[in-house]
Amino acid sequence: MADLDLTGDVVALTRTICDIPSVSGDEKELADAVEAALRGCAHLEVLRDGDAVVARTNLGRPTRVVLAGHLDTVPIKDNLPVVEDGEILRGRGTVDMKAGVAVMLQLAALLETPRYDVTYVFYDHEEVAAALNGLGRLVRNHPEWLAADFAILGEPSDGTVEGGCQGTMRVKITVPGEAAHAARSWRGSNAIHSAGAVLDVLRAYEPRRPVVEGLQYREGLNAVKIEGGIAGNVIPDLCTIFVNYRFAPDRDTDAAEAHLREVFAGFELEVTDRAPGARPGLDQPAAKEFVELVGRTPQAKLGWTDVSRFAGLGIPAVNYGPGDPLLAHTDGEFVPVPEIRVALQNLTNWLS
Amino acid sequence: MADLDLTGDVVALTRTICDIPSVSGDEKELADAVEAALRGCAHLEVLRDGDAVVARTNLGRPTRVVLAGHLDTVPIKDNLPVVEDGEILRGRGTVDMKAGVAVMLQLAALLETPRYDVTYVFYDHEEVAAALNGLGRLVRNHPEWLAADFAILGEPSDGTVEGGCQGTMRVKITVPGEAAHAARSWRGSNAIHSAGAVLDVLRAYEPRRPVVEGLQYREGLNAVKIEGGIAGNVIPDLCTIFVNYRFAPDRDTDAAEAHLREVFAGFELEVTDRAPGARPGLDQPAAKEFVELVGRTPQAKLGWTDVSRFAGLGIPAVNYGPGDPLLAHTDGEFVPVPEIRVALQNLTNWLS
Repeated sequence: MADLDLTGDVVALTRTICDIPSVSGDEKELADAVEAALRGCAHLEVLRDGDAVVARTNLGRPTRVVLAGHLDTVPIKDNLPVVEDGEILRGRGTVDMKAGVAVMLQLAALLETPRYDVTYVFYDHEEVAAALNGLGRLVRNHPEWLAADFAILGEPSDGTVEGGCQGTMRVKITVPGEAAHAARSWRGSNAIHSAGAVLDVLRAYEPRRPVVEGLQYREGLNAVKIEGGIAGNVIPDLCTIFVNYRFAPDRDTDAAEAHLREVFAGFELEVTDRAPGARPGLDQPAAKEFVELVGRTPQAKLGWTDVSRFAGLGIPAVNYGPGDPLLAHTDGEFVPVPEIRVALQNLTNWLS
Repeated sequence: MADLDLTGDVVALTRTICDIPSVSGDEKELADAVEAALRGCAHLEVLRDGDAVVARTNLGRPTRVVLAGHLDTVPIKDNLPVVEDGEILRGRGTVDMKAGVAVMLQLAALLETPRYDVTYVFYDHEEVAAALNGLGRLVRNHPEWLAADFAILGEPSDGTVEGGCQGTMRVKITVPGEAAHAARSWRGSNAIHSAGAVLDVLRAYEPRRPVVEGLQYREGLNAVKIEGGIAGNVIPDLCTIFVNYRFAPDRDTDAAEAHLREVFAGFELEVTDRAPGARPGLDQPAAKEFVELVGRTPQAKLGWTDVSRFAGLGIPAVNYGPGDPLLAHTDGEFVPVPEIRVALQNLTNWLS
């Protein structure tokens, strides 16, 4: 088993944990190494569930914060081991999100008496189906392990604080028709033509850009799949359109569904997938302090992230981590070394 | 090998040839039986190519007509052997088109000295891909076998004469977009939404209903397939719509294509499939006589049929046969017995 040096250089630590492959489902080696290293810290209580490792201080502070990150990566594409290229680390997992994990591991080891009690959460299966998500499993199996007043998820955020996240909902819209031979099309009713009315709605739709707790979100309503047609000589009797709604966290999933049913009134609509957003939570004292310390204008998080799982437990949460989130999942992903050091410094200052 | 009695009852002959299964590709047994029975007629010259059988009189008449029918059927669906149900024959092939074939076989055997020279054509592979079509193969291999002044295709036509046929063209319209994560949809361009403009054109389109040589045709322009979408969280970068244009025989395929390029101006359009229509040809003397003899108002043929293959050889052609064409390919297809007898009588009167 790899022996992790949590108290040495955080950039070296990032490289080390990137070079232990941990594609979703294959996190055990890295989780074992993380657990062993954390168990070497006398000031931490260490817990484990599957390949999720939780470590926490128990100093009796009035406020407890969570620092969380996932251990898994998307599949490797000839981009390991990590290459150090000037001031950047390039390779699978560098930006998403082993740099953030390395920062948290070092904080866990070095901060014996932080000003807030801290719960460090390192979990598995973030990059795959939501049902497998390790943080979701902890929420179900051990919600008490996650109890806190505020949480920071170390996903890449370009070094700014990204508050909350937008929700997402997918609906299937079924447009019926009546089949007929294409040589006598007037005997039928063309479902694909009728689906044009759904596309009319989508084209005319003006997405909201609401400001929630000071952050501006930006919604989106998009067809992500369309299919219809039986054969080259048959008038289609069915056309199906899958629509994805990304909604700001001032709407819950019920409100989002009601909105879609209003927008697509008259069409047969089925919700196939839903995940709530999360409010930014920047009105919490610990959050305010952190935002001031980072010293940059916080941004709204547009994509759905595990921040929402904390929101589901009533815990305000933000994203904060080194690197450009747009590089996540790209084969050329990288993280700038200075951003790793800045993130470590900001979190250290906040917790000391 | 089945022994066909061509000179007995035409309804019994219809049953017999229906009960010899001859799904496309499996016509050999029936073709062998047809060839053997025709070779038993001393007044006929018999020719064969694959599973197509051609028989003809050589009386030196100034006019020659073709009577043609296909031997194959669509797949059997527990609908053989034929059931006689009151005044109808029910089962695979009854209406499409063994009744018409039986009428022609009887004419071939009984009419030793018809008033026109007659070429009887029984062919394979009509119900499958056009490239396999047995009549098309004869056109390529032995156009001289088909030489004639007028042709009647014995497809079901409800006992009226159906003139000509409409052409058909399929085009693929490609609508591009730009992929982006659905959480940041404004960074991309939604190809499915853009495809709405194609559906607008289709919904607003007013098909022509031109009169050609006295027969009214009815065109149609329909999407028959649509597909687009990559994943549930990606803005689609491509949407493809397949459109089928059925056009009256006053337009050739070049004119049809030019029309589509005008209708869909600004969109990327590729012709994937084309087949010309055929003018009714009812101005031919032999055709006029036949129409008068049938005594019913001729109708425009809307669907594409092999009539067009004769048109390609410069031979005017019509559809005339017993049964309702809308029953073709249905599992419950049937043919009314009286219509078989009327067809036999009309063709006998015309040729005697």
